[in-house]
Amino acid sequence: MTRNATLTQAPRRSLVDSAIEQIRTQIESGAWRVGERIPKEQELADLLGVSRNTTREAIRVLSHAEVLEVRQGDGTYVRLNVDPTEVMRRVSRSSLHDHFELRAMLEAEAARRAATQRSDADVIKLRKLLKVRGNQEDHSRLEKFVDADIAFHSALASVSGNTALIELYRYFSQAIRSGVWSVLDEVDLPEPALEAHEAIVDAIERKDAEGAALAVREVVGPLIKALADRS
Amino acid sequence: MTRNATLTQAPRRSLVDSAIEQIRTQIESGAWRVGERIPKEQELADLLGVSRNTTREAIRVLSHAEVLEVRQGDGTYVRLNVDPTEVMRRVSRSSLHDHFELRAMLEAEAARRAATQRSDADVIKLRKLLKVRGNQEDHSRLEKFVDADIAFHSALASVSGNTALIELYRYFSQAIRSGVWSVLDEVDLPEPALEAHEAIVDAIERKDAEGAALAVREVVGPLIKALADRS
Repeated sequence: MTRNATLTQAPRRSLVDSAIEQIRTQIESGAWRVGERIPKEQELADLLGVSRNTTREAIRVLSHAEVLEVRQGDGTYVRLNVDPTEVMRRVSRSSLHDHFELRAMLEAEAARRAATQRSDADVIKLRKLLKVRGNQEDHSRLEKFVDADIAFHSALASVSGNTALIELYRYFSQAIRSGVWSVLDEVDLPEPALEAHEAIVDAIERKDAEGAALAVREVVGPLIKALADRS
Repeated sequence: MTRNATLTQAPRRSLVDSAIEQIRTQIESGAWRVGERIPKEQELADLLGVSRNTTREAIRVLSHAEVLEVRQGDGTYVRLNVDPTEVMRRVSRSSLHDHFELRAMLEAEAARRAATQRSDADVIKLRKLLKVRGNQEDHSRLEKFVDADIAFHSALASVSGNTALIELYRYFSQAIRSGVWSVLDEVDLPEPALEAHEAIVDAIERKDAEGAALAVREVVGPLIKALADRS
C-alpha cells in the first residue's frame, strides 16, 4: 500500500466506534426516539466532538444495521432503538455456558415444533444426516465431524418451519463453531453420543413434542452441566 | 446541504450493498473461509466490479459487523461466516406469527430457568411490575401500557440469569414493538390478560419450571393461534 493510500484511509476505528457508541446511547436512552429525525451532519459532528467524515461513517454503519435511515434530501431518522450488531456482539461475549444453553433452548423448541410439523420425508432426511454424522471416531478429521453435526442440527431447526427460528439457529450454530472446537479439544467434557441424537428423531417420528424437547435437553444437558461446574 | 457536500458524499447505498452482498456470498458459500485472508483492496474492487471507495466502505461495514477483520499492515481476514445484521434482517422479515412464536419460545425457556434461579426479591420485583402493567384500560395511553408490558417481560427474561438470552430477548421485545402496536390495533386479536401473566409469576414463586414455561405458552398461545388462523 502506498503512503498516499494510507493518507486517504478512513478515520481510525476507535473514533468511528466512539461516535457509533454515542449515537447508540442517545437512542437507547430514549433521547432520540424511533421515528424521530436526528441532528444534521455538521451539528451531529459538533455534538459528538468528531469530524464530519467520522460522523458520516458512523451514520453509514448504523444505517446498514437498520438503526438509522437516511432519507435523501430530508434527513436521518431513527428506525430501531436496538442495534442488532451490538446485540449479537453481546451475545457472543456471554460465557460458553450461556451460549450453549441458549442454543439448547432454541433447539428444544425447534424439536417440539418439528414433532408436530414433520413430514415422512423430514424423518428420512434427519435419519440420513444422523448416519453421516455417526460418532466422532467415524471421521478421519474433526472438522468433517463438526460439519456433519451442524448439518444435522440445522436440518432439525428447518423442520420447525419457523423462519425466524431457522435464521437465528443458523447464526448460533455457525457462531458457536469455534466454541464446539474448543469443547471437543478438552477431554474432560462429554461429547453428545449418537444414541442420544437418535432419541430426538424417534420422538419427532412418533410426533411426541414433549419427548422431542426432552431428548434435546438430554443431548446437551451433560455438556451444559460440565460447563457450569467448570466455571 | 451545499452542492460541494453532495459531491463528496458516499457512493450510492445500492453499490455498497451490492458489494457487501457479493463478499457475503463468497463467505457463506465457503469460497472464503473463517481465518482466511481475502484479496487486497484493488483486486477485490476488480472482482466486485466497483470502485476502491465502494470496496473500502463495504469492508468497513462488514468489519463493524465482525464478519471481517482488518489487520493493519497485514490484510483483511474472514472472522465469521454469518453476518449478524443480515440474520436479524431476515428474522425481522419473517411473518408476525413466526416472530411472536420465537419470542414465546425464548420467554418460555426464560421462565423455566427463572423458576429455578429466582430469589425472593425477584418475585417481589415481578409482582410490582405486573401491578404497573395492569390491563390496557388502566392506562390513558396505549404507549404507556406497551412500555409497562415490555418492562415486565424483560424483567422475566433477566431473572433467567442467562446473558445471551437476556440480550436476545431485549432485542426482540424492542424490535417487535411495532408488531405489538399493530396487533393491539386489531380488535379481533386477543389481548393477553393480567391473570394469565399472574400465573407465570405464581409458577416462578413456587419454583415450578414446567408450570412457568406452560404459563408463558398460555399467555401467548391464543395470540399466536389467531395470527396462524389469519394467514
